[in-house]
Amino acid sequence: MRIQGQDYRAVWWDNGAVQLIEQRLLPHRLEIVTCRTYQETAQAIKDMVVRGAGAIGVAAGFAIAQAALTASSANFRASVDDAARLIRATRPTAHDLFAAVAHVREAAFASTDPAQGREAAVRAAMAFADENGKAGEAMGRVGAALLRPNMRILTHCNAGWLAFADWGSALAPIYYAHRAGMALFVYATETRPRSQGAKLTDWELSQAGVPHTLIADTAAGSLFQRGVIDAVIVGADRIAANGDTANKIGTYTLAVLAQRHRVPFYVAAPRSTFDPAAPDGHAIPIETRNEDEVLYVSGVADDGTLRRVRLAAPNSHAENPAFDVTPASLITRFVTDGGLIDSTVSAIAAFLDRPTPLVAR
Amino acid sequence: MRIQGQDYRAVWWDNGAVQLIEQRLLPHRLEIVTCRTYQETAQAIKDMVVRGAGAIGVAAGFAIAQAALTASSANFRASVDDAARLIRATRPTAHDLFAAVAHVREAAFASTDPAQGREAAVRAAMAFADENGKAGEAMGRVGAALLRPNMRILTHCNAGWLAFADWGSALAPIYYAHRAGMALFVYATETRPRSQGAKLTDWELSQAGVPHTLIADTAAGSLFQRGVIDAVIVGADRIAANGDTANKIGTYTLAVLAQRHRVPFYVAAPRSTFDPAAPDGHAIPIETRNEDEVLYVSGVADDGTLRRVRLAAPNSHAENPAFDVTPASLITRFVTDGGLIDSTVSAIAAFLDRPTPLVAR
Repeated sequence: MRIQGQDYRAVWWDNGAVQLIEQRLLPHRLEIVTCRTYQETAQAIKDMVVRGAGAIGVAAGFAIAQAALTASSANFRASVDDAARLIRATRPTAHDLFAAVAHVREAAFASTDPAQGREAAVRAAMAFADENGKAGEAMGRVGAALLRPNMRILTHCNAGWLAFADWGSALAPIYYAHRAGMALFVYATETRPRSQGAKLTDWELSQAGVPHTLIADTAAGSLFQRGVIDAVIVGADRIAANGDTANKIGTYTLAVLAQRHRVPFYVAAPRSTFDPAAPDGHAIPIETRNEDEVLYVSGVADDGTLRRVRLAAPNSHAENPAFDVTPASLITRFVTDGGLIDSTVSAIAAFLDRPTPLVAR
Repeated sequence: MRIQGQDYRAVWWDNGAVQLIEQRLLPHRLEIVTCRTYQETAQAIKDMVVRGAGAIGVAAGFAIAQAALTASSANFRASVDDAARLIRATRPTAHDLFAAVAHVREAAFASTDPAQGREAAVRAAMAFADENGKAGEAMGRVGAALLRPNMRILTHCNAGWLAFADWGSALAPIYYAHRAGMALFVYATETRPRSQGAKLTDWELSQAGVPHTLIADTAAGSLFQRGVIDAVIVGADRIAANGDTANKIGTYTLAVLAQRHRVPFYVAAPRSTFDPAAPDGHAIPIETRNEDEVLYVSGVADDGTLRRVRLAAPNSHAENPAFDVTPASLITRFVTDGGLIDSTVSAIAAFLDRPTPLVAR
């Protein structure tokens, strides 16, 4: 995607280093972070320097490649497996991360020769990233077919190009249709506690020139009541075999509202987000994050400095589940890199059985 | 209510001045604001120095009394009516404000003698405030009968004693049961954009020693899914003749979730919040507030200063409806100062027809 005339990806490989857009500073500052070791990359995933299902998958794949590159020949497999364990422990919910680790690790171990393994790991990680970008474009094309001129679309959190190697998932159809000249309007929820809607989606849509407005998460219900939402499109962190979908906290509520108001609810995700090993939503681990995300908010103060401010009293506490699970019954269709898929066990199984160039499960 | 050993009300009359707890500084600072003229009191209502349906009603009643006290005898009625217009224009949604203005204005005009009118206005405003505090205690007693030991209660925004002369509406049953020794647990939603849950309800519950935790507004759905919510209690800004209820933005969403998960949804409000002139929710005016409430958040920075920080990019925009309307069909019962009332036209009409010591409509 283009920012001020320059092309960017959210994550890219640079000669053994992983380059990341520092997403915690957006929209206030555009900075690039360089992770020179797999440990630094893992920490960046954990600390949400990079976030978004696809982008953390791509970063995790690169991290395995970094581990392979620096593993000694004597301890090659054990070292790569140590790295895989560390990387898998960073964010438990997003399946792309596990898919990427599995894919790159498998490539690293395909030959008994560590030198060949290193080369294969780097190639596999770069291929995973390219595939992720292509999947975004494919979801854009597939999802754009659902859109009609002047539609008003509600989205949650950020599932745009910052959340993927490129294009995004939920926002990809909007970008695709917008480039084709279709007039659309987007309502972006703030998405507390980390406010990715206010900070990332709003900024992405501004960069792309897509008309939009922000709303507080609490305002979604009243928009449905007023009849100004024609469709909901969200991303996903992990999709179970039956279609139950883990995504950013608050997604379930929007799905319940959409059902009540008979508004279609679309989940956009590439193949790598589907986890056939999870029979349903109960099998998806839900990450709980630090209460400070709820108790504090960060932004730019009037003097231009980036500040964190505390909302609540000093002795306050908060619960902070990072994801919820939307049951398959509330999902109208999946927008995937392999077409529109019904939220049924059989449709999902058929989709995952089709030959795919790359992504391992 | 007691704060650090001292008894406070959210609003009180002090020899012609209106004293208000500066609610925009809580929980970080406890400051009292003195409004010496009705114009200052009206501005404090508009700027949300004082907020909450009951508290703005009480403040509005005092403001009319201030207007009566300073109106010249020659222009008594015209001056009081000018003040009434100004005060009614501050916050369009909350019915208590209109009920208070009507009640105190009527008292001021009961005699043709302005001197008697001034005295009557002050007495009426003080009686309205006392009635509001007593209504809180009555709602506490009535609502506590719905609670059982170890119940987990979800509430939204702040409908505690800061929102009334005393006690509150939604929190009154919780305080009442807690004082009687019942173990309860409260989940308080942050309630963006102004975060009254994080700033006021959390602080109130801490002062009262009621066990509780904060959640982001987006997390409510996942709590319902986990089955950890036994009841929802919220306040109200205006209740139509059919039971449709305007309350803080986000209330409707919680009611939809409660219905789906078969959790009782209670609305606590005194008689003065009911507006029989509004046949249903469509007749309730919904206030839209400045987009800056969504784009900015305020709190305490690490250096101890109170700061406002901007979340979104400089050119961003937001929609900011301050209230939504929950249809009567989603409301299990009303907790009122006159007992538990079904959310039906006939039950509400019967309740409003019963003799009441004070509150005019």
